[in-house]
Amino acid sequence: MMTPSSAEIICVGTELLLGDILNSNAQFLAQQLAQLGIPHYYQTVVGDNPSRLKKVLAVACERSRLLIFTGGLGPTPDDLTIATLADFFDVPLVEHPAIVADIQQKYASRGREMTPSNRKQALLPEGAEVLPNSSGTAPGIIWQPRPGLTLLTFPGVPVEMRLMWQETAVPYLRSQGWGQAAIHSRTLRFWGIAESALAERVAPFLDMQNPTVAPYANHGEVKLRISARAESAVAAQQLIEPVEEQLRHIGGIDCYGADDESLASVVGDRLQGMQATLAIAESCTGGGLGQMITSIAGSSSYFTGGIISYANEVKMSLLDVSAEALATYGAVSSQVAQQMAVGVRSRLSTTWGLSITGIAGPAGGNEAKPVGLVHVGLAGPNGLVESFEHQFGALRGRAWIQRLSASTALDHLRRKLL
Amino acid sequence: MMTPSSAEIICVGTELLLGDILNSNAQFLAQQLAQLGIPHYYQTVVGDNPSRLKKVLAVACERSRLLIFTGGLGPTPDDLTIATLADFFDVPLVEHPAIVADIQQKYASRGREMTPSNRKQALLPEGAEVLPNSSGTAPGIIWQPRPGLTLLTFPGVPVEMRLMWQETAVPYLRSQGWGQAAIHSRTLRFWGIAESALAERVAPFLDMQNPTVAPYANHGEVKLRISARAESAVAAQQLIEPVEEQLRHIGGIDCYGADDESLASVVGDRLQGMQATLAIAESCTGGGLGQMITSIAGSSSYFTGGIISYANEVKMSLLDVSAEALATYGAVSSQVAQQMAVGVRSRLSTTWGLSITGIAGPAGGNEAKPVGLVHVGLAGPNGLVESFEHQFGALRGRAWIQRLSASTALDHLRRKLL
Repeated sequence: MMTPSSAEIICVGTELLLGDILNSNAQFLAQQLAQLGIPHYYQTVVGDNPSRLKKVLAVACERSRLLIFTGGLGPTPDDLTIATLADFFDVPLVEHPAIVADIQQKYASRGREMTPSNRKQALLPEGAEVLPNSSGTAPGIIWQPRPGLTLLTFPGVPVEMRLMWQETAVPYLRSQGWGQAAIHSRTLRFWGIAESALAERVAPFLDMQNPTVAPYANHGEVKLRISARAESAVAAQQLIEPVEEQLRHIGGIDCYGADDESLASVVGDRLQGMQATLAIAESCTGGGLGQMITSIAGSSSYFTGGIISYANEVKMSLLDVSAEALATYGAVSSQVAQQMAVGVRSRLSTTWGLSITGIAGPAGGNEAKPVGLVHVGLAGPNGLVESFEHQFGALRGRAWIQRLSASTALDHLRRKLL
Repeated sequence: MMTPSSAEIICVGTELLLGDILNSNAQFLAQQLAQLGIPHYYQTVVGDNPSRLKKVLAVACERSRLLIFTGGLGPTPDDLTIATLADFFDVPLVEHPAIVADIQQKYASRGREMTPSNRKQALLPEGAEVLPNSSGTAPGIIWQPRPGLTLLTFPGVPVEMRLMWQETAVPYLRSQGWGQAAIHSRTLRFWGIAESALAERVAPFLDMQNPTVAPYANHGEVKLRISARAESAVAAQQLIEPVEEQLRHIGGIDCYGADDESLASVVGDRLQGMQATLAIAESCTGGGLGQMITSIAGSSSYFTGGIISYANEVKMSLLDVSAEALATYGAVSSQVAQQMAVGVRSRLSTTWGLSITGIAGPAGGNEAKPVGLVHVGLAGPNGLVESFEHQFGALRGRAWIQRLSASTALDHLRRKLL
């Protein structure tokens, strides 16, 4: 029984079967298919093994019309995807001189020489088109080995796969009539409210049929995904708009943005709009807040820099935190958080100073100041100095506390800038 | 064709097909199966849809003897896994009063009342044993619907699934003779060498059968995974050791560690062993290097802090970079990288100073200094001052350049500390 016009994701790699890596490629492709409105009912993972890959292929060809492969395109002997596909459909491999030249040029641009094993990456099944890889050496293929069946292959390296998907695969699929009916989604992003509390506030919306509204949470953030299905993107968008407006109203200040926005991008936009500048002082996050801020292209227009004051001596020498405050209240205290924010704002001559001091663990906690205790400090115009105490708990570990601390600090600044 | 004695992971959930969540359950189970030495060749994801789940079951029963399901055990109408399994094997569902009592008691302990929909969770296929869920309300099953075929079901909530796996499934599988042979793996980690070049250097090893050696690459790092199968973990380990030794010898200085080690942990161990300290100065990475260093618990014993000098004024005021160097050579230059390293080492009074200045893009590049150009500076004892120029290219984007820059800086320090 064939499901007409549906896609299937097939991830090839023994490292997935050994649990060495998380299958983020499957998640990305799944999201993309949903956005394009291309139904997809199955995902399969199989190792770097030709006979098992052929078995998977035999099943997939019967139930799906678009097969999307990731992995197994590299230069090493265990990269077998292309050769196995050619073998399965009984088609010879042919070398593409243009690909050889492209690989040579990419190696040369990094001052390296192409190795003989890379030549294998230029072998594609006869009749297959090249799916160019602008950021790596392994190209993919676009291939219709028989009528009504399309194969796309991508390398397993996520950054290469994503670029190839966006640059070539999406336009190709659209040109072939895939994704005509549109599923359009909008994700509203919330900070400072629990998933269950938000779900209760918006309960009636969760029973809607078109658009649907679904809550989910990760990394301390809560999201509401609004998805509409319609004959065009514009029509789907029109179904979403009124629901989005109501949800934003209910969410209030906790709703900070949508879709690709992040706390860092929203804060950055606002600082830029106000022609304000920001400097930061980090202790337990050790650079994580700065990284979040500078992940935004163009952040240099409002972010001047910061001090990572991991040691107390650095808090004193570079942030002018007083020895008295450190001795009396300890490094993890509202007083020190405030002095750090004031100090970095003054030293770097910015509109705002934002600071974090806390205990990321696993060691360093005690009964009075347990692991997960974090103070955020904020200094601004007109003598504004504030601090905020948070208890993130020890259960989810160091990386979680560091990440939550950085996001929470940005959220405090966001609320102040509103 | 049946592969004898192998397992298969089947994850049920439309949220996986929509890309709403990462399939971390598959990774966990894959790691567990590898540790137990239970071969596993396929993973499948299917939505909350009985007819498609049955198709997946039909395929899986033919090629695997142990089917491990996650998801679809909850109380809502779209949780269909158990009922579908019973239907597929044509067995009735029977209610287990002990499960009803357990669910009631769990709700009562949280001050809530069991809802009628929870009763569904007490219905199991006739002949199936209960796989208890100590931390949630949805139990799983252990079921042999026919000789030589075992099914285990788990809820999709990772924390519940993991506990159930460890508390009940592992002892059960061992008691049934699964996991007698052990697969043991060791992953060697390399920095500063391309995957294809390393694969060529170790080519003869890639054809070995036991242990196997497989190369892979991500985030600029190359790894070699050595996997051995033997009757015990100790015997597998003994197969791995001589191969590991030879590969480490071939890898030389490019091999920086194994398994859970990272560039940051290896550098940290070495600094700690030498009782040396480190301070950093970051420009284009904006905190990413500090975050990498402080992701290691205990890093405060060697890392004192750093300066994020995003703006040139901060490079001058806090790192003593000269206005002349900035004017003559530009912020992205070996001279400024060296002055940053010297400056932060002096200001923070550490053994080592490590700096990064570069162009992360997408804007800010030109012909002479393109996006992806990065200088790493290093200052150390006895007047040591060095810098290293890298061209990471613009193709893979800002986050990639930032991440590669931070890792590369750590690698330079690592080599210097050897």
